[in-house]
Amino acid sequence: MKRTSFEDAACPVARSLDAIGDWWSLLIVRDALGGARRFGEFQKGLGMARNILSARLRKLVERGILETVPAADGSAYQEYVLTESGRRLFTVLVALRQWGLQHCFEAGEPHPRLVDRKNGKLLAKLRVLAADGRELKPEDTRLLLA
Amino acid sequence: MKRTSFEDAACPVARSLDAIGDWWSLLIVRDALGGARRFGEFQKGLGMARNILSARLRKLVERGILETVPAADGSAYQEYVLTESGRRLFTVLVALRQWGLQHCFEAGEPHPRLVDRKNGKLLAKLRVLAADGRELKPEDTRLLLA
Repeated sequence: MKRTSFEDAACPVARSLDAIGDWWSLLIVRDALGGARRFGEFQKGLGMARNILSARLRKLVERGILETVPAADGSAYQEYVLTESGRRLFTVLVALRQWGLQHCFEAGEPHPRLVDRKNGKLLAKLRVLAADGRELKPEDTRLLLA
Repeated sequence: MKRTSFEDAACPVARSLDAIGDWWSLLIVRDALGGARRFGEFQKGLGMARNILSARLRKLVERGILETVPAADGSAYQEYVLTESGRRLFTVLVALRQWGLQHCFEAGEPHPRLVDRKNGKLLAKLRVLAADGRELKPEDTRLLLA
């Protein structure tokens, strides 16, 4: 099934999903946040066919999430680096990571841990807060249509 | 292309993506958080073919994100409500929404706004924080493998 484009949707969630493209693309962003820059590094991390990975990378560049730069070592390779928009997906990935740890892992099951570089501690849990700092549950919020 | 399952992946991000299923499923969760409970309400919100919507709803129930309950009005319909795990996807959706507003909308372009029910104000921006409350950028973090 061809995926319907959400590009014209007025909903910011739908447009985000459209801009990111698909799940694989989000894992590419995850690896870029972790320091991957070269085609081969993404391929190794994701085990994805070359043609598929190429198409995904190209789309992420078109969407302004990645940009290409000459290789840092002066070789003929090009490297992929996150734009400022791409870097801001960090929050989305942390949210998915924290949800996944609660929902998709058994207690004690080993998993990679994203920690504070300064002291090795786990990050704080993301919290949805009101402007005045109260923690909000879904039912404490309301959607105002455009 | 058949999507590879990330179910066995050790990465919590990958497992989350696998559990959620696909972009459409996340929009179903969005609408459920907004109060949709009946098949027809989801269909109206998403404009999705009945058979596709049925399959997505069934998968979300299998994955423990939605559960079915008898209709509140005592009719023969069944309704779909979020489990506690499903409700926790709120944070993921707020993260996607805030990213989309920055990245996918022109300044001044109208869009639905998620506001604090108590005072109608926009929510605070989600922030990735260390255990001690410092705000963290991607490069302030490190991934420790399992």
